[in-house]
Amino acid sequence: MTEFAVLASSITHEDIAQALVSGYGPTETPILKLIKESRSKGYEAACVPLTTVNWRERWRDMCILPSAGDAGSGKIAAAEKQAETWRRAPGFVLDEVTISRLDEAEGVVGMISDWLQLDSTDDWVRHDSEIALRQELAYASYLNVLTVILPPPRNRVHVASYARAINECLKSTPYIQFSIRLPIYDPAVFQPKQSPARRSTDSFSSVASSPTPRSAPKLVIPGSSSSARTGRSAKAPEGELNATWEMWDIIRTLCDYNTRLTLTLDLTPPLPSNLGVLSRWSAEPVQHIFLPASTFIANVKGYPVLPKGTQSFIRDSMTHRPTIILSGTNHGVHSKGGESAYAQYVRYLEKTSQSVQAARQAGTVEHFAQGYQDYLQTPLQPLMDNLQSITYQTFEQDPVKYRNYEEAIYRALVEWPETERIVICVAGAGRGPLVARSLNAIQRSRREASVYAVEKNPNAFVTLQGRKEKEWGDSVELVFGDMRQIDVPEQADILVSELLGSFGDNELSPECLDGAMRFLKADGISIPSSYTAHLAPLSSSKLFNEARANKDLKYMETPYVVMFQNVSILSGDGGGAGGRCGSQVQECWEFEHPRKDAVVDERGLPLTNSHNVRFSTLSFHIPHAGILHGLAGYFEAVLYGDIGLSIHPHRKDQVSKDMLSWFPLFFPFKDPLYLPSNSELQVSLWRLTNQRQVWYEWYAESFLPVFSPPLPTDKSEDPLGSDGSFFACSSTNVAVPSPLIDAVDVFPHPEKMETRRVDQSPKQDVGIVKIGQTALHNPGGRSSWIGL
Amino acid sequence: MTEFAVLASSITHEDIAQALVSGYGPTETPILKLIKESRSKGYEAACVPLTTVNWRERWRDMCILPSAGDAGSGKIAAAEKQAETWRRAPGFVLDEVTISRLDEAEGVVGMISDWLQLDSTDDWVRHDSEIALRQELAYASYLNVLTVILPPPRNRVHVASYARAINECLKSTPYIQFSIRLPIYDPAVFQPKQSPARRSTDSFSSVASSPTPRSAPKLVIPGSSSSARTGRSAKAPEGELNATWEMWDIIRTLCDYNTRLTLTLDLTPPLPSNLGVLSRWSAEPVQHIFLPASTFIANVKGYPVLPKGTQSFIRDSMTHRPTIILSGTNHGVHSKGGESAYAQYVRYLEKTSQSVQAARQAGTVEHFAQGYQDYLQTPLQPLMDNLQSITYQTFEQDPVKYRNYEEAIYRALVEWPETERIVICVAGAGRGPLVARSLNAIQRSRREASVYAVEKNPNAFVTLQGRKEKEWGDSVELVFGDMRQIDVPEQADILVSELLGSFGDNELSPECLDGAMRFLKADGISIPSSYTAHLAPLSSSKLFNEARANKDLKYMETPYVVMFQNVSILSGDGGGAGGRCGSQVQECWEFEHPRKDAVVDERGLPLTNSHNVRFSTLSFHIPHAGILHGLAGYFEAVLYGDIGLSIHPHRKDQVSKDMLSWFPLFFPFKDPLYLPSNSELQVSLWRLTNQRQVWYEWYAESFLPVFSPPLPTDKSEDPLGSDGSFFACSSTNVAVPSPLIDAVDVFPHPEKMETRRVDQSPKQDVGIVKIGQTALHNPGGRSSWIGL
Repeated sequence: MTEFAVLASSITHEDIAQALVSGYGPTETPILKLIKESRSKGYEAACVPLTTVNWRERWRDMCILPSAGDAGSGKIAAAEKQAETWRRAPGFVLDEVTISRLDEAEGVVGMISDWLQLDSTDDWVRHDSEIALRQELAYASYLNVLTVILPPPRNRVHVASYARAINECLKSTPYIQFSIRLPIYDPAVFQPKQSPARRSTDSFSSVASSPTPRSAPKLVIPGSSSSARTGRSAKAPEGELNATWEMWDIIRTLCDYNTRLTLTLDLTPPLPSNLGVLSRWSAEPVQHIFLPASTFIANVKGYPVLPKGTQSFIRDSMTHRPTIILSGTNHGVHSKGGESAYAQYVRYLEKTSQSVQAARQAGTVEHFAQGYQDYLQTPLQPLMDNLQSITYQTFEQDPVKYRNYEEAIYRALVEWPETERIVICVAGAGRGPLVARSLNAIQRSRREASVYAVEKNPNAFVTLQGRKEKEWGDSVELVFGDMRQIDVPEQADILVSELLGSFGDNELSPECLDGAMRFLKADGISIPSSYTAHLAPLSSSKLFNEARANKDLKYMETPYVVMFQNVSILSGDGGGAGGRCGSQVQECWEFEHPRKDAVVDERGLPLTNSHNVRFSTLSFHIPHAGILHGLAGYFEAVLYGDIGLSIHPHRKDQVSKDMLSWFPLFFPFKDPLYLPSNSELQVSLWRLTNQRQVWYEWYAESFLPVFSPPLPTDKSEDPLGSDGSFFACSSTNVAVPSPLIDAVDVFPHPEKMETRRVDQSPKQDVGIVKIGQTALHNPGGRSSWIGL
Repeated sequence: MTEFAVLASSITHEDIAQALVSGYGPTETPILKLIKESRSKGYEAACVPLTTVNWRERWRDMCILPSAGDAGSGKIAAAEKQAETWRRAPGFVLDEVTISRLDEAEGVVGMISDWLQLDSTDDWVRHDSEIALRQELAYASYLNVLTVILPPPRNRVHVASYARAINECLKSTPYIQFSIRLPIYDPAVFQPKQSPARRSTDSFSSVASSPTPRSAPKLVIPGSSSSARTGRSAKAPEGELNATWEMWDIIRTLCDYNTRLTLTLDLTPPLPSNLGVLSRWSAEPVQHIFLPASTFIANVKGYPVLPKGTQSFIRDSMTHRPTIILSGTNHGVHSKGGESAYAQYVRYLEKTSQSVQAARQAGTVEHFAQGYQDYLQTPLQPLMDNLQSITYQTFEQDPVKYRNYEEAIYRALVEWPETERIVICVAGAGRGPLVARSLNAIQRSRREASVYAVEKNPNAFVTLQGRKEKEWGDSVELVFGDMRQIDVPEQADILVSELLGSFGDNELSPECLDGAMRFLKADGISIPSSYTAHLAPLSSSKLFNEARANKDLKYMETPYVVMFQNVSILSGDGGGAGGRCGSQVQECWEFEHPRKDAVVDERGLPLTNSHNVRFSTLSFHIPHAGILHGLAGYFEAVLYGDIGLSIHPHRKDQVSKDMLSWFPLFFPFKDPLYLPSNSELQVSLWRLTNQRQVWYEWYAESFLPVFSPPLPTDKSEDPLGSDGSFFACSSTNVAVPSPLIDAVDVFPHPEKMETRRVDQSPKQDVGIVKIGQTALHNPGGRSSWIGL
């Protein structure tokens, strides 16, 4: 059984000191001994700090100058000179590093000095931390260390400087994977901090005022990123739950989504049990999860287990195949189970993870899709291209799709007036699965019926001939040709087709069926009778990078078929401020068959394709800040009555559970769009056509609800306004919570909020301000074609 | 004297009908006759509607179906069939067009049918308007019409569909210039309108419900783009003053800043006299200004003149060389002056335009810069490249720079202790202008002084030798070599240099002077003694297009020297909500000379260049919505005492008026960033260095102040909060006007607002939400080099 998580141990300075004291073999070193022990305990990797405390002390003596009062100017000048000499040619001495041999570094994840402050408020500390970082990376590179973990950003105000330094290092250090250690959120943020306003002009020349380094680095979140933090400690304001993610977003944005940049999520602070904000991490490149023994709690028997929220977060993370770094397992934090209990517990979480179980169980989409997660496939174009037999075979394996088709045909047959002989026409028969299902349905229904099978792929038509000869005989009549051009011997009562794409109409089912309507009787029916297309905004740094991997920008203007995994849907249910927004996944448009109002020519074909043009504009509520990278597209089809097919994420399990044939569609955006918490996203999507082609174009705008406080008035006016209410009256009088507050997951019940809205007074005025937009995605090379 | 504006007449359907009745020459047509008349009246161009009322009627009969109650179904079916036939092969019949001959179309600006509704709420009206537009454009193209004016967008909700259609037409119609007619703002927006929420799903199939076309199209601004529109009619909310610009921004964004897409600003509604929002149009490609006779008012004598606001807007627009379209001049709207009075008045405004006058007057920067406006120049690198003699000659023409240098040297000399002989060293003497000015200053000061002239350009050094031989003799000693490497015979009292770039330090003055400090006495002085770099955020679709004209993205990461014209500075003075922001143009950093605290080696040179690293983070208040395309960079230098050099836009006229040597610096952003009204822009700029190179990196984040309404509370809690105030208490208790309101120009006095802030109660809580960010601009090819 393949495992999803890699387990890593964390080797500390204390462990190394201990190994030094307790001795090691003649060909060993303390590090080699520790790594060997770690492997013997079942860990597949080990994290090792690259530098010793000696390095930290030298750096501090050089770079953190004592204040002028504490030391003579001669001492300061000497330190300055030492620092300048070091800056010119940075390098270690032997006792400043933990490893110095290639074999020591093998398989090791290197920990960069965690006291580096790339985002210090002090210009010189930032500057010298960056030089030290380059020095450590150069050393790691020398020893062929493949992955390093970097200390977390700690200061929102200077995180851009942290990010810039990382970007510079990524460019100058090839090969090494950089993983940024980051707490999901930090309880320390609830402490009030000073204001961010700071002008650094010329502070580079005031070296003497440098602060001493902090022994316990804490995350500094200035007032600017949030508000209302006092007096309501139980409710974490959205801005502060966002804080660490917002810093990560700045770092990866400034590093231009470098694929060598990943995350080490630090679970040291225990997670709240049910925070929707956590789902955003599923869109990010989480490479490692840092899990100290102190995060574990003891169960009733004294064994280490994780709190509920952390449990489910770890379970959900398993599909991303993280490296889980366990630390402090030998500190005896828990009374039972010993060192190995932590690793065993993580393996237990893996085994009981729903997604791991689904992936391991044959017959599920997750199992079927192994290896296809987040892989961009160009949608099939069965109208333009004749499919290969192996492609048909893959789709024919679907256990659900054909069962539902047969059921739909069966129901249609039994509900047909008993007196009549029924003609079924399968339009687009392929290798014959729907023909076979039609025959099953006829047999089950005990109705008198015959089947025509129309197919335009000459190669598949050979297979059809074989099946007619061997299986079907006279009950099936084969007709070769394009359903938009051929004629059939008699008109059908039931037209059966499966021309659907992931977005419903994207494989040109509407255009093909327009042609096939010629051989359906006036009162005949179509299976499917209708289908709808659905959209949701999504975030995924993985898919963004995959789509732009091809330098030609036109690949950012093509929809892809993708099995989503490293993805987060940004929209929430609930209407947003003012109730303008729809649900999490929204319907774009519908196609119905047969449609009878088209103007047709003498052959029964539409004069133009204008009736298949569609436009949809949808408003989504975005509860938590995130980056828009694209749109997820789904379809749902009604076959007959209440029998359907669906890949709609909320409905597929009811309609067609375990159906394998369609992964969702992904419409990429060329440039990521930042969406703040509680913003609104308005998506425009067009289905366009000319006389030869069909294509989609898409575009999005973002908005933020704002509150109107009292309008400024002349002094002569009553400051409360003429109607006595505090807020100006306007056409949209909806009292809603603040953009910062609305999104906090403390409010699980929309009904409750509804009540509060109605009760609340005085009335507040909410407006909405545009804050951003994407480019128009207009595919130059239109890849779906229809020959009318 | 060159003229700045092109005048165009507007030919109407009535004019054409009149010409038809009144007769025309045997080789003429009515249009040819009208154009000839127009030319004889001094107009250089004529606008002609391309289609007649017959076309409008046919289109309406086909595409706007009567409601089912008003007509038989047979009539509807016939219209539908006619429409489908037309959609398949769109084309005119003769009496549907005004021109049909090449000579009629020559020099004509074609007016597309103004009743087309590309942004109708009805799907079919939009669809058929787009087909009609393509038909009209194809016809214009057939007749070689070079420019067309398109009807304005009228519906904010569907402006994306308007924009998408224009983009499609730009792609399919090469060569033709598209100009979008647009009112600067529309008073009609103050009328309440219905909500924008609309789902168009399948409304394509409900053709019969199409509305009739509107006879007087009005701008529809839904509630979503603004708030608080009722009861305060005199104060136009920011959102509504933005409305037409916001639509233009969507159109050009969806058309990817196509350079064939321009604006026809329609001045039909009279402008307010003092609206800061108008300045944004100077950043846009305004090709035409539409000015009907009805916009003119009568002066006391009855002659047509324009209202004050329109006057100054037209005067300011002149430098952009617009085509001004006068219409209705033959309607006798004004009692005096006749038809020609309108054109004469526009020419009068041109003549009295300050910028036109400046451009026409020798000695001004505007005159000097003719032809260089908005032209991107790569900054000089005099350290790396030896300049050409012609470059020196250009800069030596500056009447102000050398005068100020001489004055600074003179002041330094006269203030020097009288007893001493003074040594002046000119570091970077070039062809000698500062040497000559030093000698002038010595002569004027009657002090005993000698001059060393150091120059590293071997070619310029030949010129220096010539001048020494012919002009200077023994008073000047020439020293050849790089000031960072050579030695001079004696140390100087006064070090004179001019190594400044547009941003102060960008031509590596700090690094060069670090080297030259070796030959300055310990108590010597440097002229300049300091310089500062200054930034402001700017918008300019022109500069954005210029910078990205080179497909290689690295050209978006290089600062350019530019004489700004088609540009708007986005920042305003005033601190924004919470007072976090600085002034319109802000100082980044400073360099001082001599600096004495550097650690130097035995040769007197700094060990590293770390002391010349700089970082600045600046917060700008953005009063009016706009698009960030880049940063404007300026410098100001103190030469000696209060003598300086400045290109800071607010200070240059006091410090060094008419100085020609430096245009500002432009730091481009790769992707435009949308900034809403009253937002805050935080810019980070780094000056970075390694042992060989110096470069800048830049990045920006945008924020929007939001108000915290009452925090949602449990029902048991007091809804007014424990402290009895309506708003939650927080660390930033500043009462400020709404984001939508703050920016309205009705409040001219910041002091007054300050008072209001203090007076206002109860306290409100203002927070700030991040809404966007740019990429990090990190020049891969670093173009400034230093050889240490």
